[in-house]
Amino acid sequence: MSVFQEINAPLRTIMTPGPVEVDPRVLRAMGTPILGQFDPAFTEMMNETMEMLRQIFQTKNQWAFPIDGTSRSGIEAVMCSVIEPGDKVLIPIFGRFGHLLTEIAERNGAEVHTINCEWGKVFDQQEVIDEIKKVKPKVLAIVHGETSTGCMQPLDKIGPACRELDVLCIVDAVATIAGTEVKVDDWKLDAVIGGTQKCLSVPSGMAPITYNERIEEILVKRKKVEKGIATENDHVNVGRPIRSNYFDLSQLQDYWGARRLNHHTEATSMLYALREGVRIVLQEGLFERFQRHQLHEKALVEGIKAMGLELFNDVPWKLPMVTCVRIPDGIDGEEVRSMLLNQFGIEIASSFGPLHGKIWRIGTMGYSCRKENVLFVLSALEAALIRLGANLHVGKGLQATLDIYESMNLVAK
Amino acid sequence: MSVFQEINAPLRTIMTPGPVEVDPRVLRAMGTPILGQFDPAFTEMMNETMEMLRQIFQTKNQWAFPIDGTSRSGIEAVMCSVIEPGDKVLIPIFGRFGHLLTEIAERNGAEVHTINCEWGKVFDQQEVIDEIKKVKPKVLAIVHGETSTGCMQPLDKIGPACRELDVLCIVDAVATIAGTEVKVDDWKLDAVIGGTQKCLSVPSGMAPITYNERIEEILVKRKKVEKGIATENDHVNVGRPIRSNYFDLSQLQDYWGARRLNHHTEATSMLYALREGVRIVLQEGLFERFQRHQLHEKALVEGIKAMGLELFNDVPWKLPMVTCVRIPDGIDGEEVRSMLLNQFGIEIASSFGPLHGKIWRIGTMGYSCRKENVLFVLSALEAALIRLGANLHVGKGLQATLDIYESMNLVAK
Repeated sequence: MSVFQEINAPLRTIMTPGPVEVDPRVLRAMGTPILGQFDPAFTEMMNETMEMLRQIFQTKNQWAFPIDGTSRSGIEAVMCSVIEPGDKVLIPIFGRFGHLLTEIAERNGAEVHTINCEWGKVFDQQEVIDEIKKVKPKVLAIVHGETSTGCMQPLDKIGPACRELDVLCIVDAVATIAGTEVKVDDWKLDAVIGGTQKCLSVPSGMAPITYNERIEEILVKRKKVEKGIATENDHVNVGRPIRSNYFDLSQLQDYWGARRLNHHTEATSMLYALREGVRIVLQEGLFERFQRHQLHEKALVEGIKAMGLELFNDVPWKLPMVTCVRIPDGIDGEEVRSMLLNQFGIEIASSFGPLHGKIWRIGTMGYSCRKENVLFVLSALEAALIRLGANLHVGKGLQATLDIYESMNLVAK
Repeated sequence: MSVFQEINAPLRTIMTPGPVEVDPRVLRAMGTPILGQFDPAFTEMMNETMEMLRQIFQTKNQWAFPIDGTSRSGIEAVMCSVIEPGDKVLIPIFGRFGHLLTEIAERNGAEVHTINCEWGKVFDQQEVIDEIKKVKPKVLAIVHGETSTGCMQPLDKIGPACRELDVLCIVDAVATIAGTEVKVDDWKLDAVIGGTQKCLSVPSGMAPITYNERIEEILVKRKKVEKGIATENDHVNVGRPIRSNYFDLSQLQDYWGARRLNHHTEATSMLYALREGVRIVLQEGLFERFQRHQLHEKALVEGIKAMGLELFNDVPWKLPMVTCVRIPDGIDGEEVRSMLLNQFGIEIASSFGPLHGKIWRIGTMGYSCRKENVLFVLSALEAALIRLGANLHVGKGLQATLDIYESMNLVAK
């Protein structure tokens, strides 16, 4: 047998659009010895986490809890629990993760309608609303923050229009939750999926979701409790059962609710991590956290521009926590990324599909979103580009960024 | 907004059939700052984990990796990737988790055939083989260690018979992996799912699986790569696409394999936990670990019997890491469990369905499977039962257990 050693991981500066650096308090929380899943001390922590998630989702919804899986597990849980084969689903696509929604809807037997816009743009809300009126879908599924393009789709008119037209509005807010406003109730969003490994600064492996009574009504009709634990009252479903057992929200809400129906064994240490992660967010304050993300975004953007680089997403709909930089002509983007990783221990991201090789994506999310990281990534990027012969305004980037930080400190303190 | 405090969890002695106490080295591993999912230092850890999982599954299979979800996510990933609607699936049921297999197969559109035996018994292997010959299923899905009844189904003849009859043999080894022999290759099992939160002593939240070329052949035919990341060569599927994106093993193996196809963001801290957990198992030695589980099982069983209590699963097919104790007449099993938890901080389990209120289940799994825990649970159980007026051989239980430990120590050292 091969002999493997203890984990000896290098310490990186992670400036991608996720996963990002985990708050040290969250790492510490995961070291807590575990509890049994029905230990009252543990179910109390489940309840506390639900309450804190409600606050982060800015909702009065009863249901706000994590799915035990990575972010896309939350998306799939919502979609497969709501969509029945043949249901019409409208999906506006403005980047890679719109395709993911399509993929999940198709695999669940939906009749999928899509509208597309060029990567780097978002939809005029009226265009989406007009399409809803035309297609008359059961569900509109849409991405809020598209990390592949660094764009953010406004939803404040789309949500209310869906409500008025009796369409269910499902939103992928994986990238935006806890980093910028996601007003579930105000925007009348029916189900929203958040991510842990981005602005929450919790490791990947859980997907917090929330949904309202309009969604719950569908779940209840499709409810089917497992044999072996079902009681007589459980045989009531009149709709087609949800195709997944693991992602069956009707059973999951009975596990997270007062009934505490035995379903899976809750992922204890990840729940500890999530509980601590959301606690830290509320301790900082939602508004203050959003402001922090904006401050460091501005500092980074000004540094990038002053250095003589061009933004791909210098647009009013820019995703505040992802800054996309055009790779200068004649520069191999992957060579720069390798130099950042191997010389500086800094990770930034490339992109997908039509943007592959054309942009770098720099994240300023959660715990990674702080002054020393922004300054370090700018320093390293400048040094790497000088080394590869790019034409830059040498020395200007950091000065512009320091200007921002100095002026902001004056204002903030 | 409500103010929540840092996690302040009580320290429990967990003697259930899972989740059990996590090895402190695993808890510590989770505190490691994370890496990006495509950081070479991280993909190297993914590869190392695969290699160690192969050793634990006792297999030469190429594919051995975790699903990012709790144990049942691993079962669902295998079943939904293999089963197409209308496929015949045979499931022998001897407890609650056989029902779970049925549930998952049904939701995936299988034509499910079941055979049942009384809870507390297992099948004669020939009976299962005869049924396979009669039903001629595509898949046999069966539980190895049924924690609900504390019974273990022999598979050494069923596996080879499946191979001979060209039936795919899928085994739920969630409870048994790393606690007793699970000989994937020798028993000719085609796909096997292990659990983390039992004998591996890693928190719930990952499900290690392994499967061979017979399974892979099906996956390749059903392969469908997501739009947004698919290349031209990816449009080759001739079978019906797998209904789940999250559980699509054809994409997952491309993520865990050399191609490193972007799928989900691997659950970093859970992967650290799993890597450390499997490393510890191999460091102890598989054989030595199985022996340790047997030793403490014997110590517990002798103590229970000497105390004057009766075992529910005192049978040749007893699951070595779960000991089921009949609740004495006139005793309220839940009252005893509450007393153990509230006075001693010890958790033991009740059971499900026909066994609810009739037995307690005591686990001796992984890190929980050690001398002081066995002695403490016996002490506490005796005290609680005396307090509730049960008729016991007072003082005898611990003496019998200490006898075992003393005699074993003589042999072992």
